[in-house]
Amino acid sequence: MDLSASAIVGIGRTAYTRKSGRTGISLAAEAIRAALDDAGLSPSDVDGMTCFSTGDPASPLRVSHAIGLDEIGWNVNTYAGGNQVALVMANAASAIITGQAEVVVVYRVLDSNVRYGKVTGAVEVGGFEQFAAPQGYMVPPQWFAMWAQRHQHVYGSTCEDLGAIAINNRAHAVANEHAIARDPLTLETYLEGRWIVEPFRVFDLAYEVDGAVALVLTSADRAKDLRHPPVYPIGAAEGTGAGGMPDLWSDQTSMYSRIVAPRLWARTGLSAADMDIACMYDCFTYTVMATFEDFGFCDKGEVGDYFREGRATYGGDVVVNPHGGLLSEGYLHGLNHHYEAVHQLRREAGVRQVDDAELALVTAGAGPYGGAIVYGRERPS
Amino acid sequence: MDLSASAIVGIGRTAYTRKSGRTGISLAAEAIRAALDDAGLSPSDVDGMTCFSTGDPASPLRVSHAIGLDEIGWNVNTYAGGNQVALVMANAASAIITGQAEVVVVYRVLDSNVRYGKVTGAVEVGGFEQFAAPQGYMVPPQWFAMWAQRHQHVYGSTCEDLGAIAINNRAHAVANEHAIARDPLTLETYLEGRWIVEPFRVFDLAYEVDGAVALVLTSADRAKDLRHPPVYPIGAAEGTGAGGMPDLWSDQTSMYSRIVAPRLWARTGLSAADMDIACMYDCFTYTVMATFEDFGFCDKGEVGDYFREGRATYGGDVVVNPHGGLLSEGYLHGLNHHYEAVHQLRREAGVRQVDDAELALVTAGAGPYGGAIVYGRERPS
Repeated sequence: MDLSASAIVGIGRTAYTRKSGRTGISLAAEAIRAALDDAGLSPSDVDGMTCFSTGDPASPLRVSHAIGLDEIGWNVNTYAGGNQVALVMANAASAIITGQAEVVVVYRVLDSNVRYGKVTGAVEVGGFEQFAAPQGYMVPPQWFAMWAQRHQHVYGSTCEDLGAIAINNRAHAVANEHAIARDPLTLETYLEGRWIVEPFRVFDLAYEVDGAVALVLTSADRAKDLRHPPVYPIGAAEGTGAGGMPDLWSDQTSMYSRIVAPRLWARTGLSAADMDIACMYDCFTYTVMATFEDFGFCDKGEVGDYFREGRATYGGDVVVNPHGGLLSEGYLHGLNHHYEAVHQLRREAGVRQVDDAELALVTAGAGPYGGAIVYGRERPS
Repeated sequence: MDLSASAIVGIGRTAYTRKSGRTGISLAAEAIRAALDDAGLSPSDVDGMTCFSTGDPASPLRVSHAIGLDEIGWNVNTYAGGNQVALVMANAASAIITGQAEVVVVYRVLDSNVRYGKVTGAVEVGGFEQFAAPQGYMVPPQWFAMWAQRHQHVYGSTCEDLGAIAINNRAHAVANEHAIARDPLTLETYLEGRWIVEPFRVFDLAYEVDGAVALVLTSADRAKDLRHPPVYPIGAAEGTGAGGMPDLWSDQTSMYSRIVAPRLWARTGLSAADMDIACMYDCFTYTVMATFEDFGFCDKGEVGDYFREGRATYGGDVVVNPHGGLLSEGYLHGLNHHYEAVHQLRREAGVRQVDDAELALVTAGAGPYGGAIVYGRERPS
């Protein structure tokens, strides 16, 4: 039984802003109501709800109450970050397929209290972090910068290569009214960006925002009668790179994707060449570099040229992050990539529409842990 | 596609002790190795792993590493307590059925650092707890005691009724070498138990232990060739009672089960009368009382008589918690109930074996949130 026995039938989101002054529950409720309205469904149709978080207050139990539901059935709060967005979508699809729920809402919300780029107070650390934290090595930008330096050493990639990824994303965001960062970016401006942690300048990091995204799934059968053309999950794969937790501190010149990419293509019978769109998880420019190669779009060390030659944008081989990604649309922890994939496959993206979009790859994760999913306009025969 | 396209093929556990001095990762690895060995599988067969916790260090990523795996595929850490054990099992089954994984390990581990019955240090509270905590109303025994008092007021149930549940569980544990509490319990001894929080005496509370439980699932097809007779998940249901989060503080004379029981029986076409075994989630005696009635074993207020009359033990209507449950075998957060159901349905329980056991109900949860699953020796036709 493949995942395409389910379908995405509704998408919703809030504005992406800074310092919204709103609670996560309020933001989540707004995005979910919008997604249900988009599907032509109402809260009373919902019997499943799932999110991923690290114990945020905006849990399915509280959010369901906020949209007026006294009761939901299947509900899962997956303890995870952006690494497991594809997995959360696949699990929602699986719950529908096995009859655990008929209509499942997947959402992610980030309010001003949730910021991953810095540490603002006392923190309790254990495990491997107890050795790293005393050196001040505590937040993702530091880890990814170290890996990017390694990639430069081994494959000869450059800051200009990272810049090419940032510039490509930003060029797409310029046309996206929903994006938080829409000022055009040139290589000159990129190189003038202040250092955050070498080799990362400010433009290499995701733009953290307040906001929420929601998607509604139901069975492929029920989807036929709803408001928009359904978008089908074709196949998904998950993996933990190599080495488990300790590997977080080791060589990540390629990431989880070295495991997940072949697994995904084997499951779906597809390849990079089949993709019209690639929503690549881009918490950092470097994340795109290290995973894009693994998914087979180009060889190791070639990603800079690929982006500079216009192969990652309209008229090229595949449109990478047509919304601007986490770098420019905003850091909605990757669920906005899934929104964008559906938006494009429904061919509702206006000036940003990728012509004849049939298949979209959405990756989720970075470092040793992650997954990916392929969405399509048509169910595989 | 029903859940019985998957099957449980292996079970494992550690000893249940107090103050083991061991880490959660070590305990989990021991239980998982035992479960894989029971199935005739090895760690390298595993491509999925899931647990439920509230962010414990013994995550699938770390535990998989501890059993020698550099990589696992599908892995989910569900942010949940005992409320979602049935759901976690159903999700593991769903992942197999939709091709996300072939062999999934489900585990739960509790080490000496994890105790739910008391608050030992400073805690940060938000949401509804900010109003309850200043009154010292902070831990589950207090909430459940309040609800039990309400039940006594509305339905006329008594402390002796609660005692009947504790005594029944303990009678089963006496024959269970794995149980932590095996001293026979009489009504007289029960009533002499010290008050914890009225109407709960010490025998009304789960016995918190260190330990781990693991179950291995694979497809029903692959299960046929493995070491033991497969046990099939027949159907599952999940629910959040009524009222969402605020309801945690309201009337719980019946719990999540008022929603979940009819949903489960409708999905499976079964009823209480079909069950040979009922592993009822028993964090407190009262939890059994408030949910047992909803699942249809008896009417409201009758549970005391039901247990006193021997209808909940061998030779009665249904054997409730043949292992002794969380009250007497030990508080493994409910996953030990699933172990016991499989053990019994495989008819390996020795002197505790329930004759001709074909179907087992396992409930998971308490208060407004929970679920339930039915396991069978045979796949439904």
